[in-house]
Amino acid sequence: MATIDARPAAPFATAAIAPEKLSELQALIDSRRPGFSLTAPFYTDRQLFDLDMRAVFGRHWLFAGSIAELPEPGDYITVDFGPYALILLHHDDGSVRALHNVCRHRGARILTEDSGTTGNLVCGYHSWTYAPDGALIHASAPGEIDFDAGCFALKRAHCRVVGGLIFVCIAAEPPEDFDEVAEIFRPYIEPHELGATKVAYQQDIVEQGNWKLVMENNRECYHCDGHPELACSLFPTWGLTDETVPSHLADVWDRNLSASAALEQRCRRYGLPFEVVEELDTREAGIRISREPLDGEGESFSADGRRLSKKLLGDLPDFRLGRCSMHLQPNSWFHLLGDHVITFAAFPLDEERTLVRTTWLVADDAVEGVDYDLETLTHTWKRTNLQDKAFVELCQRGAASPAYEPGPYMKSEYQVEAFVNWYITRLREALQ
Amino acid sequence: MATIDARPAAPFATAAIAPEKLSELQALIDSRRPGFSLTAPFYTDRQLFDLDMRAVFGRHWLFAGSIAELPEPGDYITVDFGPYALILLHHDDGSVRALHNVCRHRGARILTEDSGTTGNLVCGYHSWTYAPDGALIHASAPGEIDFDAGCFALKRAHCRVVGGLIFVCIAAEPPEDFDEVAEIFRPYIEPHELGATKVAYQQDIVEQGNWKLVMENNRECYHCDGHPELACSLFPTWGLTDETVPSHLADVWDRNLSASAALEQRCRRYGLPFEVVEELDTREAGIRISREPLDGEGESFSADGRRLSKKLLGDLPDFRLGRCSMHLQPNSWFHLLGDHVITFAAFPLDEERTLVRTTWLVADDAVEGVDYDLETLTHTWKRTNLQDKAFVELCQRGAASPAYEPGPYMKSEYQVEAFVNWYITRLREALQ
Amino acid sequence: MATIDARPAAPFATAAIAPEKLSELQALIDSRRPGFSLTAPFYTDRQLFDLDMRAVFGRHWLFAGSIAELPEPGDYITVDFGPYALILLHHDDGSVRALHNVCRHRGARILTEDSGTTGNLVCGYHSWTYAPDGALIHASAPGEIDFDAGCFALKRAHCRVVGGLIFVCIAAEPPEDFDEVAEIFRPYIEPHELGATKVAYQQDIVEQGNWKLVMENNRECYHCDGHPELACSLFPTWGLTDETVPSHLADVWDRNLSASAALEQRCRRYGLPFEVVEELDTREAGIRISREPLDGEGESFSADGRRLSKKLLGDLPDFRLGRCSMHLQPNSWFHLLGDHVITFAAFPLDEERTLVRTTWLVADDAVEGVDYDLETLTHTWKRTNLQDKAFVELCQRGAASPAYEPGPYMKSEYQVEAFVNWYITRLREALQ
Repeated sequence: MATIDARPAAPFATAAIAPEKLSELQALIDSRRPGFSLTAPFYTDRQLFDLDMRAVFGRHWLFAGSIAELPEPGDYITVDFGPYALILLHHDDGSVRALHNVCRHRGARILTEDSGTTGNLVCGYHSWTYAPDGALIHASAPGEIDFDAGCFALKRAHCRVVGGLIFVCIAAEPPEDFDEVAEIFRPYIEPHELGATKVAYQQDIVEQGNWKLVMENNRECYHCDGHPELACSLFPTWGLTDETVPSHLADVWDRNLSASAALEQRCRRYGLPFEVVEELDTREAGIRISREPLDGEGESFSADGRRLSKKLLGDLPDFRLGRCSMHLQPNSWFHLLGDHVITFAAFPLDEERTLVRTTWLVADDAVEGVDYDLETLTHTWKRTNLQDKAFVELCQRGAASPAYEPGPYMKSEYQVEAFVNWYITRLREALQ
Repeated sequence: MATIDARPAAPFATAAIAPEKLSELQALIDSRRPGFSLTAPFYTDRQLFDLDMRAVFGRHWLFAGSIAELPEPGDYITVDFGPYALILLHHDDGSVRALHNVCRHRGARILTEDSGTTGNLVCGYHSWTYAPDGALIHASAPGEIDFDAGCFALKRAHCRVVGGLIFVCIAAEPPEDFDEVAEIFRPYIEPHELGATKVAYQQDIVEQGNWKLVMENNRECYHCDGHPELACSLFPTWGLTDETVPSHLADVWDRNLSASAALEQRCRRYGLPFEVVEELDTREAGIRISREPLDGEGESFSADGRRLSKKLLGDLPDFRLGRCSMHLQPNSWFHLLGDHVITFAAFPLDEERTLVRTTWLVADDAVEGVDYDLETLTHTWKRTNLQDKAFVELCQRGAASPAYEPGPYMKSEYQVEAFVNWYITRLREALQ
Repeated sequence: MATIDARPAAPFATAAIAPEKLSELQALIDSRRPGFSLTAPFYTDRQLFDLDMRAVFGRHWLFAGSIAELPEPGDYITVDFGPYALILLHHDDGSVRALHNVCRHRGARILTEDSGTTGNLVCGYHSWTYAPDGALIHASAPGEIDFDAGCFALKRAHCRVVGGLIFVCIAAEPPEDFDEVAEIFRPYIEPHELGATKVAYQQDIVEQGNWKLVMENNRECYHCDGHPELACSLFPTWGLTDETVPSHLADVWDRNLSASAALEQRCRRYGLPFEVVEELDTREAGIRISREPLDGEGESFSADGRRLSKKLLGDLPDFRLGRCSMHLQPNSWFHLLGDHVITFAAFPLDEERTLVRTTWLVADDAVEGVDYDLETLTHTWKRTNLQDKAFVELCQRGAASPAYEPGPYMKSEYQVEAFVNWYITRLREALQ
């Protein structure tokens, strides 16, 4: 087969914005007041959303799924966000590659299911057929084709798998910073061996709120009084310090401190990284990662902190490892425990709707009903997700009112501020 | 407690409109032909709707509800229109105050129910807590707060109660003219003593039509052949004169004239005001109020004109008082009878949807099933509202066609013309 | 009655477009690459849709229905497309006339049903009453009217019936070219005598796709592998030539050639026109018409090609007449057979939704259950329509992705190209 022009898609992110709109957007960005939430148009305006899709989702690395979702060669998942539609395909060589889910003939969507198994990719409309690498290999009777099939490969997006987590980037030139960040988080993730997990459950929720409200909500635990199930195991003092912890949480704070000290000891003993990496707005691939204790038995997100699956992940030495929690800009967060892993991805639908995909992974040899009970495994975060959805939607409704104006972030909301810092920096870069 | 900066919300109504859009809007307004209905964009265009929200709903006094809807201290209702969301709260001192339903922290909607009872107002997201007057009284552990809580009171709207009717105004400086108008209509309303009524029933209908079509429909009875139930008691000659009454209504017209003469006598005897006040487009707080006879027994909106509730309102001396009917610009109308009161409020949702809220009030000691039958009490206006909804929706559909052009108002539609006069004047003022 | 000013509606099509938008639209049109599908905004952009409504649906002749849908004087149908709403009314003199379905008083929609029978047209709002020709004949008590009723006739659209097919044109000056085209297709249509047919079934489908995707899909059979029921009778080699026919269709191609030769002989014998007219983009009223064989028995769209209704249409001499298939720009296609006729009309709803109306006509003396079974009669095209709907929707979804770019048309898609040629020419004309 001849060399294939499987160039990535054109750089949508730099497509022209009308000058008068540009200065309007610039003024909005300049009006941002540090330490305060964003102004309303960032949450409600269609053109701002379009800018987000170009400047953030069209330029940066995004979490799209994990290897457990497409474990075998030929397995695929489709992922949609904003206007983009991607296919992630597990190749025979073990790699995962991303293709735009758009036929090069008349633009039909090629794969219509969320996931499945496929060999070549065949468009349902006129049977244009593409190899798994995107090359066009059949477009009708050969005699008829008087065009260069090599020019009509499916467009590619960049794709990387790090520790079993799959990231995509639509830009022609992906930001390089991600290389370093991947090496930062890899040692935290790899011990949980995601390649030897399976999907126990996946939940898609559509939240009636802008994607940034979803992310902001994820970046603080100031609202954790609203998560009674989660507060059983995840210390609701997250984000607080000795100085800012409120009196009604004093006992919890003390338990947290001693559990943290014990956990650090265990991690040192097992050679597991324990240091907090806090670079949410100090680099392009913004990240926070840390290993933090859980309350009670300290093993999992259950009412008493005890394990929810009986099979330890990978070669982990112990269930009592708390949670390794990672926050990545712009669209994901993760909890890795001894017994299971939960990944969260936010996929914007439009300026006021976001799909939140939550996936529970357990050891691939764990047997449902024997090693874990599905309802119990998923209970805490199913409830927590619904509570978060309600919070996000309260904010979306409030932002619609002209009476809304940016309010001040508390100290425990410093990660929300970091998210906004990161975001505003990305918009500035894109508009330059 | 320190002095609280509970200033009203910023004057949204004067926020900048792009110059090219401004001249487009100005041209639309200038193109209005007196005596004819408005051009299509007034009913279908999103930007015109936004202007309506600023120029009309963001600047003028609006009817929001009546005291019977929040009778006790601590009772509240929430009222939404266009982008605005308000809380009306009955205070311990008996006053009713209006607050914007938007938390000053991260903008969450605070009260999510249509009505209820509350002490302090607690945001469901991070528990920011406001006193009933809007003052921020708790925002987290004291040690953490390094901002001036006094700057973060809930934003206030202006609120007045006149004769038991509650009016709100979002503008920083409400129009003063309302003071005089309140004194004009107070003597008509007070004898019905709304403070001693209760809500028998409240109906919310969403009409698929622009709010102005809802109001225009209310301002004429030329279409009353389409209201067979209402026509039993409300003379369908409303808006007509000796010269314009059609021959098929000649008998009704005669009955109307003699019933009116009898009613005037009774009102003079009882000291009830009877004069027609007709200032719908001659002042800023446009009003029409009059007491007019009902057909048949002349008491209520029943098939035979007889009373629908056995308890007289307030200290009224007689059931045979016809209807005291009030039209207020921009969003309300009322019928006050001897046995019950009906209030109507139009709350715009967007350019093509309007919520119409109808509330039936009876004496607070009237007992359902004994003094009134709920179905019978509400029958005529439930049917009439549905008929009006259908009329409004026919017009909204028609306005979408490029074949629509403004048509001529008949003489009996002079109040529709007055509504449009009032409305166009408000837009002109706002754009100056 | 005085002479009535029943002028057609104002020329919406030429209403002003803002200059900056005009140059943007012009640039889009100029960017069109011949031989390739259109760029994404043509399928997704609201302003482009508005231009389509002016430049195509507001200026050209459209197929609206057939005489069998309103067989008797007084019968009417209503037809809506884009912002337009029309009434087609069968007059006492046998003619069909088109009126805009918008009252001249306050713009209410007058007829609210899809079809029915009426004398004068009475607006449901204030009973303004129009004669069938649109003249306003009653608008209230005579004494009140101080305006010239002659100025308030319902607006007319142009309407023509050719061989029983009804066409409308909203423009003040309809394109003249249609006169010639009508004479071209009349001899193909008239032998099927639509005036002696009845509606056996009518199906409305809303496809989630731009109207041009609906039309493009209709203009090729390259996708006919996706129509297994249709491929039983309609040779799926449509649009192919000796050179382009793929090997898996070689047998079908041979059957097609010999069936075609036999059909031509029969047509010559019966004096039925057989020549292919191919003027899809070479004239303003673009047309293709041809008589082509069917597979199997060659009579109808059944699994074995045998007749689906036992009654021959008109004075046709034989059931074995294949299909007379006509494609008209911009919104229709037709199959006329010996035993039944199917008409298809595409009515745009908005930029991403199109109503497709399919109507099956049989001889007016055919008896359901005796001469035809309704399920069997409609089976093939009901299935085919649903398959086409799915194809259209795949393309609409794909066009939303920034990765979509125009792809190349195959030779067998030359009619799709012709549709786009015709369309682009119409836009250019309109913007001049």
